[in-house]
Amino acid sequence: MSLEYRSEFRIVTGQSVRLADRAPAYTGHDLRREDSENVKRAAVEQIDRLQYLLYAAAESSLLIVLQGMDAAGKDGVIRHLFTGLNPQGTRVHSFKQPTQVELAHDFLWRVHAQVPAQGEVAIFNRSHYEDVLVARVHRLAPEAKLTSRFDAINRFEHLLAENGTRILKFFLHISPQEQLERFRKRIEDPLRNWKISESDYSERENWPEYVKAYEDVLERTSTEWGPWFVIPSNHKWFRDLAISKIIAEEMESLQLHIPPPRVDLDDIRRKYHQTVNEERSIERETGL
Amino acid sequence: MSLEYRSEFRIVTGQSVRLADRAPAYTGHDLRREDSENVKRAAVEQIDRLQYLLYAAAESSLLIVLQGMDAAGKDGVIRHLFTGLNPQGTRVHSFKQPTQVELAHDFLWRVHAQVPAQGEVAIFNRSHYEDVLVARVHRLAPEAKLTSRFDAINRFEHLLAENGTRILKFFLHISPQEQLERFRKRIEDPLRNWKISESDYSERENWPEYVKAYEDVLERTSTEWGPWFVIPSNHKWFRDLAISKIIAEEMESLQLHIPPPRVDLDDIRRKYHQTVNEERSIERETGL
Repeated sequence: MSLEYRSEFRIVTGQSVRLADRAPAYTGHDLRREDSENVKRAAVEQIDRLQYLLYAAAESSLLIVLQGMDAAGKDGVIRHLFTGLNPQGTRVHSFKQPTQVELAHDFLWRVHAQVPAQGEVAIFNRSHYEDVLVARVHRLAPEAKLTSRFDAINRFEHLLAENGTRILKFFLHISPQEQLERFRKRIEDPLRNWKISESDYSERENWPEYVKAYEDVLERTSTEWGPWFVIPSNHKWFRDLAISKIIAEEMESLQLHIPPPRVDLDDIRRKYHQTVNEERSIERETGL
Repeated sequence: MSLEYRSEFRIVTGQSVRLADRAPAYTGHDLRREDSENVKRAAVEQIDRLQYLLYAAAESSLLIVLQGMDAAGKDGVIRHLFTGLNPQGTRVHSFKQPTQVELAHDFLWRVHAQVPAQGEVAIFNRSHYEDVLVARVHRLAPEAKLTSRFDAINRFEHLLAENGTRILKFFLHISPQEQLERFRKRIEDPLRNWKISESDYSERENWPEYVKAYEDVLERTSTEWGPWFVIPSNHKWFRDLAISKIIAEEMESLQLHIPPPRVDLDDIRRKYHQTVNEERSIERETGL
């Protein structure tokens, strides 16, 4: 079962993608919701353990990209899966509307500044992919420029991968009906209705254009060094389960180990005993 | 009991400080270790709940500064207390030896770049205080320059506080014997002996100079807007308990609330129903 999630949801390089063929309400075939909780928890613990090794070794890094329509669950994934990670070595970056300064640079400038250092896990809540999604749907740049961005993205991610960054990109796939249902819940939940914006509804009208734009992204930027996974996300429990399993398996495949001591342990043991003895003689002399 | 930790460990502005008068092995007077776990867990949950409000309101921020001798437990506090926080909105920054570029700027330059934005919690593992500690003990700058840094720090933190940042600074107070014991454990623990460096032992020789430097820091930079707390840290369980209680109480005092919706909810409800009806009629028309 271990390999299923990775292979089942991964977009093979060069494969053509029709999101309509992938059911957002899919929940796998062998695990029921009530049994999934333990599997997910074990995967999160595995990620936590491996994050310690990643941090200790400080030779490679992990970049997780989360994309999806409004209310697809990007914040929820971060809350449910990454709250268990040591914040020392884990960093979330949310990409908002670009600022004037950011717009005055190439579209990867602000992204490059946020990539993980060796030893780190970085989680992108939205990412450079907005620049080939929103920008495309709203025609913010000429088509030729947008097309050249796909090449730029692939080369950029290749550079990161060559420097030891494992890149995992997740598209959280929900149906329009599920989105509407989540909007309804937000209206009625006093803890969450501060999140509602007018644009939720206006962006929704562009759903078919977003689907097309996402299909293009998935087809053209799922590479060996930066694979896309399309995660059925109508059911939050299955979404969290699939993502946690994929991350755990990918991290396991990095074959991380605690690095050897940077010092000669015998030498350090001698230093330790010497220090202890010196303090004893000080204690004797001074009566402290 | 609620106010005890804050008042018990806070350095009053202008107070003279002798660390020798403060027992690093102190464990309070009313709570035993086995009972402390629940209190600490409740405090961490409270911090987590309040962090959501801080993030939602996005009007104020929290800056936590952790300082202490080697092996005092800075990493441990981060691991034990802040792993429960949503990483979206929580950021840890570890200040290492300054780089060449950083050294070519004033000492607050690299620090200013890392302060929390409104809505964020930032945790500093070491901080600008290294520049009046290490720099002092190793005489890296003339005394007059070091003295002027105290003023610079107080003004800098005042600026942050005026912009809505609540600053809490913790000195993790351990005894030299406890440090030595922790060094011993590190030597024998294969999961942690990669952390050992030669400088652990050489820096230890400067313990009395560090104590003096810390006393100066505590006396001169514990302000109303940036108070220092001296936390007895020989016992990890008490250290975590005291820090979590102080943070929870301070955050509670910010009187955070979920912000009101940015939209007219009735209007949004109408939009919602309109959207639902339109989709129904499309379904009827198209038979989808």
